[in-house]
Amino acid sequence: MKKLGRSTVVFENPPSIKEFFAIVGEKEGQGPLKDCFDSIVNDPYVAEKSFEAAEAKLQKLAVSGVLEKASLKQEEIDIIFAGDLLNQCIGSTFGISSFQIPFVGLYGACSTMAESLCLASVFAAGGIAAKAIAVTSSHFCSAERQFRLPLEYGGQRPPSAQWTVTGSGAMIVEAQGTAAPFVRGVTFGTIEDYLIKDVNNMGAAMAPAACKTIKAHLDATGASAADFDLIVTGDLGKIGGELLCQLMREEGMDISSCYNDCGMMIFDIEKQDVHSGGSGCGCSATVMCAHILQRIRSGELKRILFAATGALMSPTSTMQGQSIPAICHVAEISNTKV
Amino acid sequence: MKKLGRSTVVFENPPSIKEFFAIVGEKEGQGPLKDCFDSIVNDPYVAEKSFEAAEAKLQKLAVSGVLEKASLKQEEIDIIFAGDLLNQCIGSTFGISSFQIPFVGLYGACSTMAESLCLASVFAAGGIAAKAIAVTSSHFCSAERQFRLPLEYGGQRPPSAQWTVTGSGAMIVEAQGTAAPFVRGVTFGTIEDYLIKDVNNMGAAMAPAACKTIKAHLDATGASAADFDLIVTGDLGKIGGELLCQLMREEGMDISSCYNDCGMMIFDIEKQDVHSGGSGCGCSATVMCAHILQRIRSGELKRILFAATGALMSPTSTMQGQSIPAICHVAEISNTKV
Repeated sequence: MKKLGRSTVVFENPPSIKEFFAIVGEKEGQGPLKDCFDSIVNDPYVAEKSFEAAEAKLQKLAVSGVLEKASLKQEEIDIIFAGDLLNQCIGSTFGISSFQIPFVGLYGACSTMAESLCLASVFAAGGIAAKAIAVTSSHFCSAERQFRLPLEYGGQRPPSAQWTVTGSGAMIVEAQGTAAPFVRGVTFGTIEDYLIKDVNNMGAAMAPAACKTIKAHLDATGASAADFDLIVTGDLGKIGGELLCQLMREEGMDISSCYNDCGMMIFDIEKQDVHSGGSGCGCSATVMCAHILQRIRSGELKRILFAATGALMSPTSTMQGQSIPAICHVAEISNTKV
Repeated sequence: MKKLGRSTVVFENPPSIKEFFAIVGEKEGQGPLKDCFDSIVNDPYVAEKSFEAAEAKLQKLAVSGVLEKASLKQEEIDIIFAGDLLNQCIGSTFGISSFQIPFVGLYGACSTMAESLCLASVFAAGGIAAKAIAVTSSHFCSAERQFRLPLEYGGQRPPSAQWTVTGSGAMIVEAQGTAAPFVRGVTFGTIEDYLIKDVNNMGAAMAPAACKTIKAHLDATGASAADFDLIVTGDLGKIGGELLCQLMREEGMDISSCYNDCGMMIFDIEKQDVHSGGSGCGCSATVMCAHILQRIRSGELKRILFAATGALMSPTSTMQGQSIPAICHVAEISNTKV
């Protein structure tokens, strides 16, 4: 491992993402990526009694699924990094509790797939985990009633609102893996707060954090936007994505030709009536695990930046009139080791 | 770094805990450790408008305090690991948002001081953080109204209940430090669920996790309880502590002669009417930062195990009839490098 800049790490022997697995709900299973998911569950309860237990079940199924796909037993995994949006992260704790795998609990809101992947990669590259799992989840019904309004209320959503994805994505990061995708480097972000207070406009709140960490990664590694086939955020949505491109231009970097956002990819935002796009930890997790990592493995994509963003407020802080601090972590993923 | 067993890491060049800082509330400032804290705040609002903002302020003051004590600027810190008990960890996100330090958000409930210290130590020993901060907090008033009952209700507490500490503790972990304390090794724990459902008996829910990770650390490193001056948990309280000693005996290890619990140390549990003892992320954080690390620095303690435990339920999971999964992470701290 080599430290570049303040919080960028590049890996001399990059760990591989050995396997990945994505499970989603019905609406996601009707979107543009419907043929890519490993599993689509039409029952929003996933045969559990509550939406929260359903979300935990999705995370459990994602971990079981990725283990099975990789032909590994849970005993072969040294550590698991997980988190989610629910109060006290019960999607992860109850989802993972049936596994006997050392567990590091995270809270990074919708940045969690990148946060967990970055940490798993550091542990693998540092020789202290032969194999690590990174996993996260979200569920429209558990998130909606916790963060916004009771589902039964049917609250109207402004055009800037995003739709929380129901789904979970899990990756196995392997220290000595020889097959692509490889994690070439990571950058951990700082908290940015542009004093935006509209919880129905998360994209705007998170775009500055994405700009900051992407720029930090490019500056530290000496790369430019032109070196990447794809710079993909998760999940700024339509509005936040446009703001990010604008902020990057103001920094003298034009990413618009290689930019996309997981929240724009998982839904047909017009036909599926999701306004500004998808969101939730499960959004970038399932788009990465179902679609993007596969395209890197196949060689269709050579080198990408995965920049997952999180809005770090709570319903309490919002009701108390506070702004929305945001964060972004970045993983550079490639189909070659160098 | 050397991996021993599944999730134990020992450091060939152990990072040092360069500095530590503890800030607490009025009740903690009247307890047995009153002369040890760096700062005691008698205003439960800490000059903020809500208890949640007060908790964030405590974390901000702990980070400012430890930087000042170490004569460091925030620019000299490569990364900060933080988390707390509040929904979406707003004690940490709002506490840290005024610093421009790369941030890794954690959720480990009351295990957070160990979780953050273990990760900071791995990053320092792995050469990817010259200096890292580990910090956490809790606040009686924010925790009580979130997890239990409105403060105004004055709900009666059963004898097994613990009292959430108001306070925050922060440590600076340095890769190339030459002065004690040193972090010699860490073990990340698995989630253990003994199906205990009584949220007023967290000690019982968490004791099995403590037993599991302490045993894993001793097994992996080949050490025995006799090698330590102190094995300290945070925070099992009186009931959980007794259960842990019993569980360890059943594993053939008697830790009772060197065992203590941060929740038993921060309060005079009889005189201060805190029933089974203190709890909350801020309990073990402030006891470590105010008292135990100082005793290691002075040489009074030579080698200790710090085993912080977390109860991973939420009020929602409890109301839905779920049990309390628990976790424990362990850091081995010594006043010598070998």
